[in-house]
This record gives sequence, structure tokens and C-alpha cells, in this order.
Amino acid sequence: MKTDIILKEGERLDDVERNDYRIIQSPGKFCFGMDAVLLSDYAKVKPGEQVLDLCTGNGIIPILMEAKTKAKKLYGLEIQEECADMARRSVLFNGLQDKIDIVTGDVKEATKIFGKASFPVVTANPPYMNDNHGLKNPTLPIAIARHEILLSLEELVSQASALLKESGRFYMVHRPFRLAEIFQVMQKYRLEPKRMRLVYPYVDKEPNIVLIEGVKGGNSRIKVEAPLIVYKEPNVYTDEILHIYND
Amino acid sequence: MKTDIILKEGERLDDVERNDYRIIQSPGKFCFGMDAVLLSDYAKVKPGEQVLDLCTGNGIIPILMEAKTKAKKLYGLEIQEECADMARRSVLFNGLQDKIDIVTGDVKEATKIFGKASFPVVTANPPYMNDNHGLKNPTLPIAIARHEILLSLEELVSQASALLKESGRFYMVHRPFRLAEIFQVMQKYRLEPKRMRLVYPYVDKEPNIVLIEGVKGGNSRIKVEAPLIVYKEPNVYTDEILHIYND
Repeated sequence: MKTDIILKEGERLDDVERNDYRIIQSPGKFCFGMDAVLLSDYAKVKPGEQVLDLCTGNGIIPILMEAKTKAKKLYGLEIQEECADMARRSVLFNGLQDKIDIVTGDVKEATKIFGKASFPVVTANPPYMNDNHGLKNPTLPIAIARHEILLSLEELVSQASALLKESGRFYMVHRPFRLAEIFQVMQKYRLEPKRMRLVYPYVDKEPNIVLIEGVKGGNSRIKVEAPLIVYKEPNVYTDEILHIYND
Repeated sequence: MKTDIILKEGERLDDVERNDYRIIQSPGKFCFGMDAVLLSDYAKVKPGEQVLDLCTGNGIIPILMEAKTKAKKLYGLEIQEECADMARRSVLFNGLQDKIDIVTGDVKEATKIFGKASFPVVTANPPYMNDNHGLKNPTLPIAIARHEILLSLEELVSQASALLKESGRFYMVHRPFRLAEIFQVMQKYRLEPKRMRLVYPYVDKEPNIVLIEGVKGGNSRIKVEAPLIVYKEPNVYTDEILHIYND
């Protein structure tokens, strides 16, 4: 049952275009992008499974996955209280407080919060940039969401692995330029890359997003999937992107 | 200057569609595929550089690269004397004996043959399959060319790295299902993956070929390139494939 919520300064309430759910966003702090939508579609959750989303931001991934899957319960972990607070108010507004639990905390402490080997599925849309050069204010929420200021890729992956049960699945969205490092770190922590999809803005352009599934303790064989093309012409999505957004 | 050559039983003389060069092939031993054509186009050689092609088979890659680049000299290393002999006769037929040197030998011994840190460019179109299950005759030339019977991926990459000068480039064509292992082994031997292109038979299909450039001692940042699509419809190549074959 939906309830009234308070929108704070600079915030707006957006439609996530699924189940009539809404989400609180704040351009200066955190707004979700296509990456989050693609990750929530890429992650496969079996009925009754529990899911932990690391770096959950305003909670877009648990909210979308609640709509798309039959997960028993979804947890979102977010270090910035302002973002976690937005996420909690969105959960309440959508009446999802029994399905989604937003926890304020540091991913580096995640096994202390949730316990080791406790999830079959972990997702993450982490900060992409490892080069903080030129960052004017590294304490700004938007900088923390985009740059590895509070969390490195290796810290994220090591925690994801520790949180997962054996054979559990890790789903991450990231930037292709870090692919070699991503594979290296995943293998170091026994999260074998098993499935990958590259997202190309246009059919003749370099990819700008990569979706990856890792399996804890999996063998070394990866399925590279068909290309996901975003636009067939400027401002016109391909049919597949429309399906991901609307189906 | 072209000379007469002897064609042995089962062999044929094919046009490589470049510089009027011909190549000896034998369906029971070794015929080149699109992989070799793509690799010879993907590898970048600066004028005057020397190139070593490992697992050279019938010499298709040095022959194509002689036509496409201004390499000073190209070497091909092949363990199977029957294939090396085909390659040598093709080199002679095309009058390339001053530009291409085909050596019979084992990649695992390559640094003993050529010396360590002796090339700026190493290429390889190695056996793809690490699963020899169901192989009826592992001594057949075609099995040796396709399966890791005489040479593992790690043995290949470790030798390629040892053969390369610092900052030297390694170009390899392989199968996408081994991508995670390829990256892992390359990084283990300091061949940092710097550039990658996936080859998709059709725009909506999984890729079946991957082209990779590694740089000895490079930093961890990879450029994933635009997709290379082979067919626009059945039996009709895309313009880019036609360019690679004909330009």
C-alpha cells in the first residue's frame, strides 16, 4: 500500500516504468541511468532467492528487480546516508517495505553486516572510474558514486565473493575499458566470469557498457553473448532496448 | 620472381586475393579460414619491423602480412613439417624467400630458436580447443592445428611474451569462450590486453571469433572496439569484411 512521503530539496519523483513504481532521484546526488536498468534485466533470480545489491544508491536496482523477479527478499547496501534515505522513502512509497531492506553501511564491512556465504545472488553497479584526476570535490555524493573514492573494484569483488554461497552468482555492470582488470580480480576471488554482454550505443561504435555474470567456483568457460545495440538511429531505441524497458 | 613448384597429393593452389599471391592448401592438413585473414588485418606492423608468426600452419599469415604491411622480415614457426613444407613452397612460388622465413620447430622452444626479447611483433592463430574429448586421431595434422595437443594456451603466451621486446605487441585470434582464461594467462606473462574486437557472424548472434592485442608491460586499460559483423544476410558479407578481404 502506497503512503505519502516527503520529498526533500532538489529531489524529484520519477516513474520507473514498471509496476507503476516511483523512485526518488536527486540530480546532485544520484540518478539512475540505463546501466541500472540493463543490470536489473541481466541478473537472473530464481523464485524465492534472496538478493543483495551493493552500492545500491537510491535503490533503483532492488526496486526494478522486485518488479521483474520472484525474489523472496532484496537488500540494498549504500554507504551514503543521503542516498540510502532516498532509497528507503522510495521503498515506503511503493509499499515494498516487506520485500526490500535498505541498509546504510560500507561494502568493505558487508560480510560483517550480512554474514559470509549468505546470498545466492549479489548485484553491483559500482563506481566505474579509477582515475580521480581533476575531481574538484571528492566528498560530493555524485563523485563518490562515480569514482573509486570509498571503494575499489578489488574491495567490491572480494566482498561479493565472500557474501556469495558456493555456486552463487555475481552480476555487475561496468565499463569495457576495465575488462581485463575486472576478469583478473574476479578470478582472484574465485568469481569465474561465465557470461558477458557488451552494450554498443550504435552498431558501428565501441561499447560503453559491459554486463558480467560471475559464478563462485565456476570453471573457466565464458559465454559471450550477442551484442546489445542501444540505438538504431539517434534518439530511436532498438527493439531490444524497448523490450528491456517495457516488458 | 615466381618459380614452378611441386603440388603434392591432396594439395591445391589457392588465390589469397592479395598481390596476386597464391597459397598451397590441403584440406586434410591445413586450410586457412577467415580467422587468419582477420588476424593479418588486425595486427599492426610499423615499417621495418620484424614479425614472428607462431603456429603458422601453411604460412597464410606471414604471406598476407607481407602483402599488407611494410615489415622488414616475417618469420613463421610451425611444428608440423608437412605444413611447414607447404608454407615454404608457397613462399617460393610467390618469390618471397627474401621476406619470409619458415622455420620448422616447436613453439615451446621458440626462444631457443629466435632468442629472447627479439621481436617487436608476434602473431598467433593457435589451436582453439582445450577439450580433446572424442578426438579420434590426435596425431592427425588437422587435430594438431585445432586442439591443444602439442601446445597449451599458457605455453604459447609465455613464449610469445619471452620473444617480445619490452612494449612489443602480441596479436592473437581465438574463440570468445576462452576469453577469461586468455586474459588471465596474458596478464600472468605481462602481456596486458590493450585492444579487443569481437567478431559476430550476424548482428544478433553470439561472437565466434575474438581478436586481441596485448602489449608487453602495458598498463591495465583495454579498448574494446566496435563489433565486427560478418554477414548482413546469409552469404552476403558486410562492407567491412569485404574491405578486409579486398582493400
